[in-house]
Amino acid sequence: MMAVIKSEIRKGVYFDSVILMELQASLRHFPGVSNVGIMMGLDTNKELLKQNDLLTKEAESAAQDDLIISIKGKDDKDVQKAFSEVDNLLSKRRSIVRQKYLPKSIEAADRMLPEAHWVLVSVPGIYAAGVVREALRLKKNVFLYSDNVSLQDEISLKKEASDQRLLVMGPDCGTAIFNNIGFGFANRVRQGPIGVVAASGTGLQQVASRIHQLGSGITHAIGTGGRDLSKDVGGITARQALQLLQNDPDTKVIVLISKPPDLEVASALLKEAISGNKPIVVNFIGLPSPTIDNKESNLHFASSLDEAAELAVKLANSPDVPKSAKKSQSMFVKGQRYLRGIFSGGTLAQESLFILRNYLPVIYSNIPLKKEYKLADVRKSQQHTIIDLGEDEFTVGRPHPMIDNSLRIERLRQEAADAAVAIILLDVVLGYGTHPDPAAELAPAISEAITSAEKAGHALEIVVIIVGTNEDPQNLASQIKRLKAADARVETNAGAACTYIGQQLLSLGKIDRLPAVDPDVLKQTVKAINVGLESFAASLSAQSAEVIHVDWRPPAGGNKNLMSILERMKK
Amino acid sequence: MMAVIKSEIRKGVYFDSVILMELQASLRHFPGVSNVGIMMGLDTNKELLKQNDLLTKEAESAAQDDLIISIKGKDDKDVQKAFSEVDNLLSKRRSIVRQKYLPKSIEAADRMLPEAHWVLVSVPGIYAAGVVREALRLKKNVFLYSDNVSLQDEISLKKEASDQRLLVMGPDCGTAIFNNIGFGFANRVRQGPIGVVAASGTGLQQVASRIHQLGSGITHAIGTGGRDLSKDVGGITARQALQLLQNDPDTKVIVLISKPPDLEVASALLKEAISGNKPIVVNFIGLPSPTIDNKESNLHFASSLDEAAELAVKLANSPDVPKSAKKSQSMFVKGQRYLRGIFSGGTLAQESLFILRNYLPVIYSNIPLKKEYKLADVRKSQQHTIIDLGEDEFTVGRPHPMIDNSLRIERLRQEAADAAVAIILLDVVLGYGTHPDPAAELAPAISEAITSAEKAGHALEIVVIIVGTNEDPQNLASQIKRLKAADARVETNAGAACTYIGQQLLSLGKIDRLPAVDPDVLKQTVKAINVGLESFAASLSAQSAEVIHVDWRPPAGGNKNLMSILERMKK
Repeated sequence: MMAVIKSEIRKGVYFDSVILMELQASLRHFPGVSNVGIMMGLDTNKELLKQNDLLTKEAESAAQDDLIISIKGKDDKDVQKAFSEVDNLLSKRRSIVRQKYLPKSIEAADRMLPEAHWVLVSVPGIYAAGVVREALRLKKNVFLYSDNVSLQDEISLKKEASDQRLLVMGPDCGTAIFNNIGFGFANRVRQGPIGVVAASGTGLQQVASRIHQLGSGITHAIGTGGRDLSKDVGGITARQALQLLQNDPDTKVIVLISKPPDLEVASALLKEAISGNKPIVVNFIGLPSPTIDNKESNLHFASSLDEAAELAVKLANSPDVPKSAKKSQSMFVKGQRYLRGIFSGGTLAQESLFILRNYLPVIYSNIPLKKEYKLADVRKSQQHTIIDLGEDEFTVGRPHPMIDNSLRIERLRQEAADAAVAIILLDVVLGYGTHPDPAAELAPAISEAITSAEKAGHALEIVVIIVGTNEDPQNLASQIKRLKAADARVETNAGAACTYIGQQLLSLGKIDRLPAVDPDVLKQTVKAINVGLESFAASLSAQSAEVIHVDWRPPAGGNKNLMSILERMKK
Repeated sequence: MMAVIKSEIRKGVYFDSVILMELQASLRHFPGVSNVGIMMGLDTNKELLKQNDLLTKEAESAAQDDLIISIKGKDDKDVQKAFSEVDNLLSKRRSIVRQKYLPKSIEAADRMLPEAHWVLVSVPGIYAAGVVREALRLKKNVFLYSDNVSLQDEISLKKEASDQRLLVMGPDCGTAIFNNIGFGFANRVRQGPIGVVAASGTGLQQVASRIHQLGSGITHAIGTGGRDLSKDVGGITARQALQLLQNDPDTKVIVLISKPPDLEVASALLKEAISGNKPIVVNFIGLPSPTIDNKESNLHFASSLDEAAELAVKLANSPDVPKSAKKSQSMFVKGQRYLRGIFSGGTLAQESLFILRNYLPVIYSNIPLKKEYKLADVRKSQQHTIIDLGEDEFTVGRPHPMIDNSLRIERLRQEAADAAVAIILLDVVLGYGTHPDPAAELAPAISEAITSAEKAGHALEIVVIIVGTNEDPQNLASQIKRLKAADARVETNAGAACTYIGQQLLSLGKIDRLPAVDPDVLKQTVKAINVGLESFAASLSAQSAEVIHVDWRPPAGGNKNLMSILERMKK
């Protein structure tokens, strides 16, 4: 069956993608019409039209700032009828923003609502960076919904914002909530004591919704864009946002979530988190850590978004939550910063590596999580190191280290002599077949190591994970007692030991914070300028926030060269 | 200061490594002695002696089955004095096994204790495979403590054992418990209702100890060796052990733990786990899944070893635990097996990929967990697929899929038409800025997809993750109601949805089980033959188990060529 496909090109007009979607949907319902494509003349859109058999010769020749309307129908008459309704439909649609005067620029909007702290940007990606720069020039915080913004632009915009004590949330930031007003895609959630920082749009929505479902509420929820915790961006927005909420008197508990982050960036962020005086619930997707009921720290790991919300609500409701991690930096001297783990049990070593990954992203080992962290020489530790003495390489022709303590006592001495070491972690596995009395050999070695470190002018903490029962030949309680008497900290599982160690080591050393964002931004009843999707302005209005929508058009008719000249002229 | 180093070579003698360790420790305390190395003449041991400055010319020339005794001391007199005490110390030590007659071979031991089900093997790695083959010939189950056994030997030994309905636990199997008797390194734990399968030695010890600490106990705990769940070995021992415990009437709950496993092997094992009629707690280290309080399945994921123990005890104490997963295979027809996830929220898609990884190791995506699972063409699904329609590639020049449902309805139709698809997963995110009434468009599309699949002769299940609150403009409760009316299964988080889906899909299709190990092995009061470390025989005796220790020597004087000739002659 033959069909008719026709295109109309409208030069130099611009409509946002939601308006075009609605127009397209309406036209599709016309009698005799089988398909409709309405898009700006970008190359990617032409490709889409082609896939849907809607790309005519006229459409192919359209410029970036031209609107293409392609209609496919049964016959010429039906297609013409549909075209004749386009203007009517567009003019009817034009009414969702109830604003007498539509300014053409952010500057003009700023003159209408100078106290606005916010600019929402949802123009097509290629134009977004320019719009954000204009907003920053006017000292506005930016909610950048647009996607398809380059990484280079993201980095330069965020650095510029940070220097000016302003936030750029995004690009590709889908959602945020400030003072009960949702930006972009935002659920209606109760106000309450919990603040959220999220490098993850639906993650923020899931957590905020669940907090509401559980009867609690949020102060502010700050999106950062999904790339913020990448190595390149370095978590600039997350660090600003965390600091902002740490300083906000209304926020009692903070939830920190992210799509799989760069481990070193995540670790730097946790260092800021642990240094503050509020409980912080963390869920980095793909990096779940056992949730330990840790009574000494303000840092709590959740293993899912839902659990993060539940934990935050629980913490907000408990009066006895630690406000900050118990710190022992005072004990260590400058330069002490490393962990050395000496294990006889391979699984305990491996579980420890997985738990510590959240705190210490780089740990060298003979059984490392990543190949690049394989020890060059197993006999010599590098930075943070965990060594499994039960591996084949150590057990040829000699008893397993659960039987023979000599190798690890030797290693303990070696590590204790290293002035850069702060904590040494050992495991002790009891039971038949293992050493008949490990404490008899290890406790004196531990005492000696601590004493010799003290004599050399540095502190040393020794943590022991002990596995066993009170019916074991060595007796668990008696072994624990003697190890504690030697000043070891003793735990019965890797989770408790490693959570403690991670927190201690994160607390060491100085933190370089970014300049604090002006806290006024959290105090103001939201007032905003909206550039891009009209529907975002409408939804702010629906939430009773004051908003000025800008009748934005691509600058220089979408011509890239002209755009960059204009951009430079404004500086 | 000068020192004297001397070596004595004892030709063709053999002592186990624990005995040599004790001798070495005793000699080190002699006056004037600074270091001692006592080892069999293996190349690796010579390397160790060299590192410790104990390798003399005599030691260098020692053969594999020669015992090297190297002593470093102040002067000749002290060193000679130490050498003269060696025999005295060795003869004193020789008494830990109270056995009138020491057989020289497993055959001879078998004649003394023919009803023994077990052979414990802890000889040096290079000799271990030969000893295990001999044990299998005598129809014994094997506890293989030895490490440094080749992967090829492990595979061939396990296949041979499986064909004979016997277990080979190991190599490098540190621990096991049968009927209250610990093998190798084993804690003394209460008998109780929980069985353990562990590709992880200290993992088994940690879980068993914690179960005991919590007041419960275990039936049997079966180690498999750390490589059992690798791609090459394919989980042979774990699959045998799981089946054995699934068939054991005394075992009410099973704990299944492993060092980081091969994902496809883990998935095959879970398929057997879910098909059984007992609750199973799973902790694969490095692969923690959110623990979902799933009321429909027998499979429970723990995020740490400790939590695995706690969960098992809880399940053993609850009367209402599901004995097997609710299965709906009957609903699907042959050939239906794939999941297709169509997401608008990137984080929900990513969290789903992480949770499902435990069940479905290979999921293709435009945002895959591993590069090799990147979709070749995002418009076409392959096998299990999860697609994030919110990614930049889909949003150029068109509204986000949270606003515009058209792309995903189109994809929903496409997936529903694929007869290999069993389940389709969608997310629906409510709130300001998103589609004003997604159910109005999605519910009819869901109904239609289910109906058209039915007409085409296959079943289709559609699962929806919905995020929102009852104060959202779309109203959560009303959206859920209408989606349910369209026969969708609706969950409010990715955890519940993906746990359900993973279990449904794991339940599909046939399972090829290995031949069942003879259940008598669990009924017998442990009787065993011990080949290798004397201390293991002694610890069995201490637990009142009957044991015959073999006075084992390296075959053919440790000569590899001769060994392999002898080996072939026995076949």
